[in-house]
Amino acid sequence: MLAAVDAVVGYTTYIDLVKPLISGKQVVSTGMQQEVARVEAAINLALAGRSCAIVSSGDPGIYAMAGLVFEMCRQKGVRLTPANAAPGGAAEALPVEVVPGIPALCAGAALLGAPLTHDFAAVSLSDLLTPWEKIERRLDAAAGADFVIVLYNPKSKKRDWQLARAQEIVLRHRAPDTPVGVVTSATRDHQALSVLTLKDLKDAPVDMQTVVFIGNAGTTTSDGFMVTPRGYTRKYDLG
Amino acid sequence: MLAAVDAVVGYTTYIDLVKPLISGKQVVSTGMQQEVARVEAAINLALAGRSCAIVSSGDPGIYAMAGLVFEMCRQKGVRLTPANAAPGGAAEALPVEVVPGIPALCAGAALLGAPLTHDFAAVSLSDLLTPWEKIERRLDAAAGADFVIVLYNPKSKKRDWQLARAQEIVLRHRAPDTPVGVVTSATRDHQALSVLTLKDLKDAPVDMQTVVFIGNAGTTTSDGFMVTPRGYTRKYDLG
Repeated sequence: MLAAVDAVVGYTTYIDLVKPLISGKQVVSTGMQQEVARVEAAINLALAGRSCAIVSSGDPGIYAMAGLVFEMCRQKGVRLTPANAAPGGAAEALPVEVVPGIPALCAGAALLGAPLTHDFAAVSLSDLLTPWEKIERRLDAAAGADFVIVLYNPKSKKRDWQLARAQEIVLRHRAPDTPVGVVTSATRDHQALSVLTLKDLKDAPVDMQTVVFIGNAGTTTSDGFMVTPRGYTRKYDLG
Repeated sequence: MLAAVDAVVGYTTYIDLVKPLISGKQVVSTGMQQEVARVEAAINLALAGRSCAIVSSGDPGIYAMAGLVFEMCRQKGVRLTPANAAPGGAAEALPVEVVPGIPALCAGAALLGAPLTHDFAAVSLSDLLTPWEKIERRLDAAAGADFVIVLYNPKSKKRDWQLARAQEIVLRHRAPDTPVGVVTSATRDHQALSVLTLKDLKDAPVDMQTVVFIGNAGTTTSDGFMVTPRGYTRKYDLG
């Protein structure tokens, strides 16, 4: 996709990661929290007739840029059509394609073992765009129904108390020795992972690149791996 | 990874998909619901000193084979160690590595637009290994806390009533015109997708290769795409 487009737009860090793949292309890179400006730039390039890729990390559809592209096009009255649609759609519509990727929750889970082999819920602890009460309600519901819980955005420079509060809420429903996996920057430089227990979660080493995996009632650790059984061994009495 | 190993083990359909990549390798392929036999074969190959890849579809950690490998090794007393671990671990431990992939929930979401841009819960409707009461409890909790809901295994030849029951449960909490995306065999032959509403879910065309996406209270459709807003447009008053 990067080879095919005229222009590439992205957060500076991600542009640096793909630099070897985009030499000679028009590049628009901006800093953190400039998501709106980036998507605006991409839409304007596309409206001017240039094909444009927005670079995201992980999967662009999970807590990432794909949604904002659709949100902003709708706000601006820019019509969209699937890039691979048969001809005959609205003439003025921009073709758009979301290219899926490996989300951080899969990259992190693979390093930990197999924590996501059963039902799971992903919850972002960032209350910049979501009321904290709604986040608490989701944590409580997910913990009460025994979902494996994946926490995105556990902490940032400005948000330092949410992880401890999440721990409290989950502890209403789950044992203090529930396994917890903490993965930072999976597959990148500075990758770090640790397996601990729910009672120690609030002091776990986390930052904005960290994804936290809280096991369900059946999750175990073995040889340092974190595993949520699907239930085969119970059913088939493997011995 | 496939190029590096001595042997490849997998469900017949998946082995066929990777056939061009594994010529000359030892291959063990078995039919549906032979998961335990496949992992047993792989463990035995590994114990005999042959490196072995188990082929899965999507991401091996999400409702797939990674968990069963760890479950069965534990049952059999086979010690494991991370493949990239520093030397010095238990001499008899088998090195294991989970290679992440693009899960069906990301491949399907990308085709639909951006349904997963906010918190979501993945629930399998298969009650072969999980009591149905537990599945109901999870559906109710996820719907009540306004998670986007991703349904795996909505139907099989032997299970034909679960999707209608799931619809009933979610309708307790969510409007009948809530957008629903239905994606079958994403990125494969016979790929099919449709966007409908929650009130029509029980009659949607689903099979074992289908993933269903039920929007949250804010999910919209526009130009045929299904989009769950992250909240940027509310916060920044994009005009």
